[in-house]
Amino acid sequence: MSPRLPKALLKKFLAQALSLSKKAGQIILKRRISGYGVRRKSDRSFVTDVDLEVERFLRAQIGKLFPAHGIIGEEFPSVNPGADFQWLIDPIDGTLSFSRGVPLYGTIIALHHLGRPVVAVVDHPALNLRYSAALGHGTYCNGMPQFVKAQSLPVKTSVKPREEIIVMGDRAQFVGVGKEAAFDALLREHPRVRIYPDCFGHTLAVSGAVGAMVDFGIHSWDIAATRLLIEEAGGKYVCAQTLKRPGKETLYGIIFGKPKVVDWLLPFFK
Amino acid sequence: MSPRLPKALLKKFLAQALSLSKKAGQIILKRRISGYGVRRKSDRSFVTDVDLEVERFLRAQIGKLFPAHGIIGEEFPSVNPGADFQWLIDPIDGTLSFSRGVPLYGTIIALHHLGRPVVAVVDHPALNLRYSAALGHGTYCNGMPQFVKAQSLPVKTSVKPREEIIVMGDRAQFVGVGKEAAFDALLREHPRVRIYPDCFGHTLAVSGAVGAMVDFGIHSWDIAATRLLIEEAGGKYVCAQTLKRPGKETLYGIIFGKPKVVDWLLPFFK
Repeated sequence: MSPRLPKALLKKFLAQALSLSKKAGQIILKRRISGYGVRRKSDRSFVTDVDLEVERFLRAQIGKLFPAHGIIGEEFPSVNPGADFQWLIDPIDGTLSFSRGVPLYGTIIALHHLGRPVVAVVDHPALNLRYSAALGHGTYCNGMPQFVKAQSLPVKTSVKPREEIIVMGDRAQFVGVGKEAAFDALLREHPRVRIYPDCFGHTLAVSGAVGAMVDFGIHSWDIAATRLLIEEAGGKYVCAQTLKRPGKETLYGIIFGKPKVVDWLLPFFK
Repeated sequence: MSPRLPKALLKKFLAQALSLSKKAGQIILKRRISGYGVRRKSDRSFVTDVDLEVERFLRAQIGKLFPAHGIIGEEFPSVNPGADFQWLIDPIDGTLSFSRGVPLYGTIIALHHLGRPVVAVVDHPALNLRYSAALGHGTYCNGMPQFVKAQSLPVKTSVKPREEIIVMGDRAQFVGVGKEAAFDALLREHPRVRIYPDCFGHTLAVSGAVGAMVDFGIHSWDIAATRLLIEEAGGKYVCAQTLKRPGKETLYGIIFGKPKVVDWLLPFFK
C-alpha cells in the first residue's frame, strides 16, 4: 500500500496532468486538420505521426517537470523504471478511430505511486470532455463531480443490470485472448450491448451513462487511468484476466462500472 | 420521379431546416442540464419530455413557415397527409442514449417532395456536428463537403471491405425482424464491427469514417434523412427489408456507405 500523499502534492500532480492533456488535445485537433502519416506496427495495430508527436511532447514535458519520475508509454522505451512515481501515458487511445475520423478517441495520462494510481486523466479532445480523478478526492468531468452509482441525473431509478446499457470492446480483442465465447454469450443474453471500444467506453462507465464496460486484450497504458476514475466515482473495478506473454507485453481483461452490474457480468468472463 | 425543384427554393428549405435543427439542439442541451421526465411507450421504447417539447416546437415552426406542407413525426399524428411536400422529423433519435447521458443522439429533419427526399439534416447537438444535404447540391458537415468514397483525408488507401470499420444497430433491432443470424454471422466474420446505434452510426457512414452501416428494425423518420445524405456524398444506399405490419408502422432494414462495402455486406442480409 502506498503511503498517503499530501493533498497539496496530489493537487499539483492533477493540475499538471490536466494541463498536459489539454495541450495534447490542442496538438491532436490541429493535426487532425493539417494531415499526418499512418502505418501499421509489427503487432498489426496502427500508429500515426500524431501518436508519436503527442507522446514525445508529453515525455519532454514530464521529464522537465519531474526529472526523477518514471515514464511508461506505448511508443517509446520506459524512463526511470525504478522510480516510485511512474507516469503512464497513451497519447491517442483509439488510434484506428482517430485515423478514420470517428471522434471517440482520447488521451490517457495517469500517475502511479509505488504501483498504485494516484492521479488519472482521460481527455476526449473532439468531444470537449475531460475526466479526471485524484486518490481520495473524487472524479470530475469538466469540473462536474461524477457518480457511477447514480444513473444520469433525470433517471433516478434503481440499477437493474438488464436495463442498463453494457459496453464491450471490439470482438477481435476477445478472440485474441480466448474470450470470444463469453463475448458472444453476453451479446445474445443482454438486450442493450454496444461496442464502443477504447477510452470512450471507459468514460461512459465513469459517468454512469452505461451500467458497465467489459474490455479485454488491453495494455497497461490503456487501463492506467480507468481504475482510479471508476473507484473515485464510487464504482467497482475488477481485473478478470492477466495474460502474461513471454517477450511481449502483458494483456489485461477488466470489468468496471456500477457494482451491481459488474457483479452480474463477472460469471460470463470467469 | 419528382420534378426538378428550383435551386433557390431548395436552398431556402435547407436554410430553414438547418435553422430549425440549431434551435432544437439549443432546447436539447438546455433541458439536458435542467432535467426532464422519461417514460416507456406502449412499444417499450423510451420517450422523454424533451422529445415531446422539441417535436412540438418543430411542428409549430414548420406549420408557421409552410402551412400547406405535411408533417410526419414519431410522437404526434401526421399533418396534411396528402401534401406534395412532407417534413419528416425525429426530435431525438437515440432517446435511450440521451436519457442515460451517452452524447451520440441527434435531431433528424428531412423534407420529401412527392416521396423523394430533397433536403436532409442530422444534427448532433452534444457533438457540435451538423450534417446536411440538398438534392443535387452535395452533403456538408459544419460547412465542409463530405465524400463517402474517400477515407478520412490522411488515409488515402483504396477501400477494402475487411479493413473498414462496419457499424450496426443494437442486436435487439435485428432480433425483432428475424435477422439475428445475419447479425451474428457478420460480427463473427468481420474483425471491425462496432455497435453505434441511431443517427450517429448513420453520419459516421456519411462522413466516410466507417465503411458502411447496417441498420434494421427502424421507422420512416429514422431513415428520412440518411438516403439523401449518403447519395449526395457519393455513397450507396440500399433498402434491404420492408416489413409491413398490420395496424403498426412499417419497419425498414437499410445498408449504406461506401459502394464496395455495401456490396460486400448485402449477401449477409439477403
